[in-house]
Amino acid sequence: MTSLTDLEYRNAFIDRHNGPDPQQQQDMLNQVNAKDLDDLTQQIVPANILLNEPLSMEDAVPEAEALSYLKAVADQNDVFTSYIGMGYHDTHVPNVILRNVLENPGWYTAYTPYQPEIAQGRLQALINYQQMVIDLTGMEIANASLLDEATAAAEAMAMAKRSVRKNKSQSFFVDANAHPQTLDVLRTRAEYYGFNIITGKLSELENHHVFGALIQYPGSNGAVVDPEPYIQELHRKDALAIVATDLMALCLLRSPGEMGADIVLGNSQRFGVPMGFGGPHAAFFAVRETHKRAIPGRIIGVSKDTTGKPALRMALQTREQHIRREKATSNICTAQVLLANMAGFYAVYHGPEGLKRIAERIHRLTGILSEGLEAKGVRVVNSHFFDTLTIDPLHNLELIQERAEKHRVNFRVTSDGRIGLSVNETTTRDDIEELFDILLGDNDLDVSDIDRELEAQNTTFLPENLERTTDYLTHPVFNSHHSETKMLRYLKMLENRDLALNHSMIALGSCTMKLNATAQMIPVTWEKFGRLHPFAPATQTAGYQTLVDELQSMLKSITGFDAISLQPNSGAQGEYAGLLAIRKYQEANGEGQRNICLIPQSAHGTNPASAQMMGLKVVVVKTDDQGNVDQQDLEAKAEQAGDQLCCLMITYPSTHGVYEEGIRHICEVIHQAGGQVYMDGANLNAQVGLTRPADIGADVSHMNLHKTFAIPHGGGGPGMGPIGVGAHLAPFLPNHCVTPIEERNPLMGAVSASAYGSASILTISWMYIRLLGANGLRKATQTALLNANYLVERLKDYYPILYTAPNGRVAHECILDLRPLKAQTGITEVDIAKRLMDYGFHAPTMSFPVAGTFMVEPTESESKDELDRFADAMIAIYHEIQKVGNGTWPAEDNPLVNAPHSQQDLIGDWSHPYSRETAAFPLAWVGDNKFWPAVNRIDDVWGDRNLFCACPTTDSYAEN
Amino acid sequence: MTSLTDLEYRNAFIDRHNGPDPQQQQDMLNQVNAKDLDDLTQQIVPANILLNEPLSMEDAVPEAEALSYLKAVADQNDVFTSYIGMGYHDTHVPNVILRNVLENPGWYTAYTPYQPEIAQGRLQALINYQQMVIDLTGMEIANASLLDEATAAAEAMAMAKRSVRKNKSQSFFVDANAHPQTLDVLRTRAEYYGFNIITGKLSELENHHVFGALIQYPGSNGAVVDPEPYIQELHRKDALAIVATDLMALCLLRSPGEMGADIVLGNSQRFGVPMGFGGPHAAFFAVRETHKRAIPGRIIGVSKDTTGKPALRMALQTREQHIRREKATSNICTAQVLLANMAGFYAVYHGPEGLKRIAERIHRLTGILSEGLEAKGVRVVNSHFFDTLTIDPLHNLELIQERAEKHRVNFRVTSDGRIGLSVNETTTRDDIEELFDILLGDNDLDVSDIDRELEAQNTTFLPENLERTTDYLTHPVFNSHHSETKMLRYLKMLENRDLALNHSMIALGSCTMKLNATAQMIPVTWEKFGRLHPFAPATQTAGYQTLVDELQSMLKSITGFDAISLQPNSGAQGEYAGLLAIRKYQEANGEGQRNICLIPQSAHGTNPASAQMMGLKVVVVKTDDQGNVDQQDLEAKAEQAGDQLCCLMITYPSTHGVYEEGIRHICEVIHQAGGQVYMDGANLNAQVGLTRPADIGADVSHMNLHKTFAIPHGGGGPGMGPIGVGAHLAPFLPNHCVTPIEERNPLMGAVSASAYGSASILTISWMYIRLLGANGLRKATQTALLNANYLVERLKDYYPILYTAPNGRVAHECILDLRPLKAQTGITEVDIAKRLMDYGFHAPTMSFPVAGTFMVEPTESESKDELDRFADAMIAIYHEIQKVGNGTWPAEDNPLVNAPHSQQDLIGDWSHPYSRETAAFPLAWVGDNKFWPAVNRIDDVWGDRNLFCACPTTDSYAEN
Repeated sequence: MTSLTDLEYRNAFIDRHNGPDPQQQQDMLNQVNAKDLDDLTQQIVPANILLNEPLSMEDAVPEAEALSYLKAVADQNDVFTSYIGMGYHDTHVPNVILRNVLENPGWYTAYTPYQPEIAQGRLQALINYQQMVIDLTGMEIANASLLDEATAAAEAMAMAKRSVRKNKSQSFFVDANAHPQTLDVLRTRAEYYGFNIITGKLSELENHHVFGALIQYPGSNGAVVDPEPYIQELHRKDALAIVATDLMALCLLRSPGEMGADIVLGNSQRFGVPMGFGGPHAAFFAVRETHKRAIPGRIIGVSKDTTGKPALRMALQTREQHIRREKATSNICTAQVLLANMAGFYAVYHGPEGLKRIAERIHRLTGILSEGLEAKGVRVVNSHFFDTLTIDPLHNLELIQERAEKHRVNFRVTSDGRIGLSVNETTTRDDIEELFDILLGDNDLDVSDIDRELEAQNTTFLPENLERTTDYLTHPVFNSHHSETKMLRYLKMLENRDLALNHSMIALGSCTMKLNATAQMIPVTWEKFGRLHPFAPATQTAGYQTLVDELQSMLKSITGFDAISLQPNSGAQGEYAGLLAIRKYQEANGEGQRNICLIPQSAHGTNPASAQMMGLKVVVVKTDDQGNVDQQDLEAKAEQAGDQLCCLMITYPSTHGVYEEGIRHICEVIHQAGGQVYMDGANLNAQVGLTRPADIGADVSHMNLHKTFAIPHGGGGPGMGPIGVGAHLAPFLPNHCVTPIEERNPLMGAVSASAYGSASILTISWMYIRLLGANGLRKATQTALLNANYLVERLKDYYPILYTAPNGRVAHECILDLRPLKAQTGITEVDIAKRLMDYGFHAPTMSFPVAGTFMVEPTESESKDELDRFADAMIAIYHEIQKVGNGTWPAEDNPLVNAPHSQQDLIGDWSHPYSRETAAFPLAWVGDNKFWPAVNRIDDVWGDRNLFCACPTTDSYAEN
Repeated sequence: MTSLTDLEYRNAFIDRHNGPDPQQQQDMLNQVNAKDLDDLTQQIVPANILLNEPLSMEDAVPEAEALSYLKAVADQNDVFTSYIGMGYHDTHVPNVILRNVLENPGWYTAYTPYQPEIAQGRLQALINYQQMVIDLTGMEIANASLLDEATAAAEAMAMAKRSVRKNKSQSFFVDANAHPQTLDVLRTRAEYYGFNIITGKLSELENHHVFGALIQYPGSNGAVVDPEPYIQELHRKDALAIVATDLMALCLLRSPGEMGADIVLGNSQRFGVPMGFGGPHAAFFAVRETHKRAIPGRIIGVSKDTTGKPALRMALQTREQHIRREKATSNICTAQVLLANMAGFYAVYHGPEGLKRIAERIHRLTGILSEGLEAKGVRVVNSHFFDTLTIDPLHNLELIQERAEKHRVNFRVTSDGRIGLSVNETTTRDDIEELFDILLGDNDLDVSDIDRELEAQNTTFLPENLERTTDYLTHPVFNSHHSETKMLRYLKMLENRDLALNHSMIALGSCTMKLNATAQMIPVTWEKFGRLHPFAPATQTAGYQTLVDELQSMLKSITGFDAISLQPNSGAQGEYAGLLAIRKYQEANGEGQRNICLIPQSAHGTNPASAQMMGLKVVVVKTDDQGNVDQQDLEAKAEQAGDQLCCLMITYPSTHGVYEEGIRHICEVIHQAGGQVYMDGANLNAQVGLTRPADIGADVSHMNLHKTFAIPHGGGGPGMGPIGVGAHLAPFLPNHCVTPIEERNPLMGAVSASAYGSASILTISWMYIRLLGANGLRKATQTALLNANYLVERLKDYYPILYTAPNGRVAHECILDLRPLKAQTGITEVDIAKRLMDYGFHAPTMSFPVAGTFMVEPTESESKDELDRFADAMIAIYHEIQKVGNGTWPAEDNPLVNAPHSQQDLIGDWSHPYSRETAAFPLAWVGDNKFWPAVNRIDDVWGDRNLFCACPTTDSYAEN
């Protein structure tokens, strides 16, 4: 008879998370010739780093229990009505978008659209977003989002410097009326770029020799000041004019593009994305045509497929830092795709008229507030404003704050004791009445009366010359989907064009595409997490504090580090923050001269880029034939660097998918040479529960919460890249000027716009870790090892496995070498990637870390049957390649080079030497659940040569 | 300048709900030759019934405001831990099912699978459900669900009587240990069937001559008594043995099928469907093979398509009451598809081992509770039980209740002062400790200690001979999808096989497939609505009371009636409840002899079936050439009926889609003859805001909340059919024995298992009405008229419109006559229906109310462009038919008779006289969003001849 403890099945989620069931697990162990998971682990993980005891945290907890606990944590948050503004505003997430995008695995489990033929849905959504940004900012080209407004500003600063070659100034001017968090991040970033930040009133700009300036329009305090004279002033100086702005304001205000701005950026959060205590949201970034090849981040562009049909894909891929590496000045490699999609859909749903109406309502309510206050003798500081007032309070500030507290209302209090009030989409006339009560005490003002007066006067509070006269969002996509039925069908149509994890395995070596469990996603959209302003008083954010504390403590257990910063919004930003901590630590120890960063050949492209951004000189360390670090070379380079050695950046297990035996020694070499070890967390999924970065010897490491800890990839973001550090580095973790973090060094600046980065999705990783617990985390990692080694077993006779440990084992991923087949037959890795689509699969990572290979990481969440389907597909493709090799199929006409096949291919004439069935249903099971690429193979080169990164006209489709 | 009131755009939802935008609306008005919507309305709705003033309710409210108000209403509910049982148990809805089925428009907006080629996903889900019921009950055939356990019992009683022809008894025995609400409904139903209900202990069964008996197993008080002797006793009497049971218990208990039961039924709610204060849930119903043609409700069966591939569809369609009409003894025409799907998926997700573990845990916790209580001297009434204990409380009941209140715990208190406690899936060891505290005061019992003892004794509390020894859920479908990734992909694969409203218009004349807005759906899954037991004390259900009161008041305004009952769970059940009120009223007035029900020829099949169930004699009234009631015939039939005239059942606008001019007169004729008017609410969507049933002359009418008031169709349920009545009938609305309804007559019985039917989805209709308000409801109806008349304008030159008003107008739907084309070319309505699939559309209602026609109701939610696409498809089909007629395409080989075309068709050889493109992409826009039928045309007849209604073996697929 079973015990109650067994019946309670507290490990249920572990079995839901891991793909293979017990029988499959046993079969696979037999096939890879291991007794059990522990035996396999011992064969793979070097004994000198293998953990002997379970992680010090609770074991797995059932889903209902974890959700109910986290619900109680959420309830510790107190949602006040927010008028704080400063770039974050409450918004109505359109329900049809909330449920069918943000809460829909069809959208949130997709990967970055590197395989565009099976990603046309989100590519369309992103180009809508770009078009929206282009239209509202009046600029010529926009990217598909950056991480937040403050880092977008930092990217703009760096881009400005790169762009004004003749201007040798190292100074950058920041509008005193910029958001303080933007200034904070700019200061942090400027230091190691070697820039000098000057802040002041825009009128002081003329006194300074600068390479660029950031103008906030409207200003942080609400003032609407004409930026055009300052833009002209900058151009006279051969400097770039950067305008940080607000999309909602631009619905009524003259666009920066019309005024000659070079770069326009901001946060699109208020377009239907919850504030979420700071994120995630999509920052926008738009430039003039002349700067198109300098723009950081991803851009979606229009190209055509082999039939000539317009087709979308990421443009200018060669700009990515895995190509530029140590020459990059930006390490941006991700975007906020899911949130950019939402913002773009918000514009699609409301259309230009709807947006204008919303903006006008916000402006009117602000105007009514202003008129009412002034009528009662309150001084409103700015005569022109869009949605934000700064006022000199009539009464004692504390009294007003007391009343606000009672009404559950937050506003901004400026350093000079003024009150800032930002009106938003959710503000109602009752809210304005309430604000009168709070700000004036009892009042006899009537919103409708004031409204009638304003209507009669026929006036706005915008400067007359800055009222917008140009159209926006005129493309049909913004004028066709305004009924909910149409919007729903539009979203569904796009969703169906995208292959995501709800269809089949996406076995990427560069990203851990594991299960994003529903229970992990549910809390993200709880109002008590979603509606908090990042700068809400700490008394209202106890729930978030608990979440942060608990998650940090979990991550400490997992990594062995002493302190965690949750601020970095991506892995690359984590690298930046980690190197920053190292440099600050060394400076504090009088070793500021240490400026050499060793990086193995095989590193991710972000590593050298991050080092470069931190003012470090990158020295590349060789790798040996097995892909391991060449220890002799390492020692030599370390010695050569001498007291200039700052650090080593190393990925573990290696980017070749192997647990290098020598890792402890490598760390020791660096430490002995006075350097620090930065461990890139990209492969942390192979460590969790089995070993720990800190134990191995790392001083700092980032954790990709979106890879290892189940935050879904979102189609290309959000990500999160918190860092863990040893105690010696803890004082050098990022802080925040608006909401200082208790345990942090007040002298440290911020690396992100908000103190805890994309705080609302921390819930996902919290849930993930709680659901798996110490026992589940270990088992998940072991299962990931089993899955990868099982795939090796299935595929090694067809595709050489490029790097393995001496015993033939790989870690959690493996590299399939496609080069011999290419040499024999001319079939390329791209052909194979495209052909996999015909079988219903997304290709593995292509040509990283080794050109001409596939890097395959199946993750623990895939079952044996899915792995077998993938292996069957790869083997079938192998045989297809043989047919090309032996001449059965000509090199220029075979299912590989013609892949992927679309529905259109099947209906036309057929003159290929293989059948329609071979084309589209090459294995029996494909037809059970066929996924159709929406277009044929896309011509990347044509697209880059004919760069077009906005919504194509409807005609362009009709022509084909 | 715009006023704040305009900027607030409080009508936003109206424009989201209605399809045509202002420009489209104007274009369409021009084309149908009407000045504006009011002009069109006046052309259509007879002046003597057209409302002159707006409905007396508030105007539209924005989504956020309505949601926030309803959230406050929900918060009035108090969710206590429920041990009440009685057929309703708390459950963990698996999150992956919650989000991807219950909250997914791909599942909830689908129609009943009348077009099986584009419904294979939910058909698969339903056959899983049937298989699960078959396995657990041990029976041979199961239907795809009934409305609730109590009405399933009533159906079983009626079926038993029909099935035992030789047994002339009119008595039916009900186990005294049946759930009281089941007995309540049985009594109501028995009265007009003319049956005599006998209740008593099963041991008394031998004393009675009965045609059948209902045995509850386990009993309502928890006792597990062997039903087999009583089943044998019944069989000796030539009577049918009906067992009401519990699927969770059957995971451990010997199945009724093994004991010879003839009918087995119950509620599948606890398989992952929220209690929702009473519903909706799927009742199950299983019989022996011999009764397969007598089983009420829908059955999914396996057939094959034209290529021989196994394919699913609704079996035995000829059993539906629109065929049997007045000979039917059941008016069941809907099912609880969405909830049956969920319950079936729950079994797929947990599998046999998972379910057994859950059942064992429940049983163990119950055993621990029992042992602990007995150790402390509490008498546990039954020595054998599964999950429910009945105890004699040790202390004063009030004291215990006070403690329970403090702990926020509910249990059952029986009429004899005992306590009933039902343990469920969500119960934990802490809960049992808490129960000890409540029931015993301070206690020193330790759950783990008792568990160890039970483990040591190796005992259960089931009678030894009733422990289950047979397997269940051995089919692979229940043993393959246990990781969340696999379950997610399985759900997605099935979803993709179904065409639902998120793909394209479903223009049914028999069902109003309008927008089911997200904002309307969101509250359904709020815990404060979902986790309430229907028999929770009124002090905890204030939120539901508010919801009910407000919705009733809205429905009164809309219909003009004086009282509303929300109890009926479907339109047909509304008809039943309405006729019941009429008969009771007449009896109270000494006119019990009135037993003739007049029904026009064109009526829905449920009308005569409902009349028959109420012991009424159906007399059919002729309709004239225009489809209107033949007034002369009506008058004659009314006169003929004399003082036997009970009522008229009439649909308005008529089932022909026309507002009959004479409706007021018709009602007067009936009233003058002493009869009552029952207005079938099927077409209420054409009345809302324009006229009202009560004003027209109806005494009672049902409202299909799932048609008119936006509850989604769910793929074939849930529905809701509340009735409204005049003040004279109000005393005769249904009541409920367990939770009496304050304003109701204590002498009235129940028609459903719970007092407010499927209470949790009342939220949807509440939201719908609040969001549209008086102004929006009217505009929606007017838009529905415009859309229908626009379609007439587009299609009338190709397909004759069968019935119109004298001025050529139709109401909200129209009948396309396909018979002339069939006569000319042999192309049938079925061919056209199947061919529409190739164009991406679901066919309109076929052959109702007139054989050989399509009834098309586009609803207000479709935009002009979607209507145009549909019209273009129908016109293209017209031209295709001409090609058959003129011999271009042979009659036996053309795209119509071969429709629908599947992906498989395209890859094989092609020898048809039309191209692949014509087959699958007949118009340019089809390819933008192609929907592929999962199978070719299904052979209905073969399936009925070779009836197989369980999951086919995997081999059967492989063979093809």
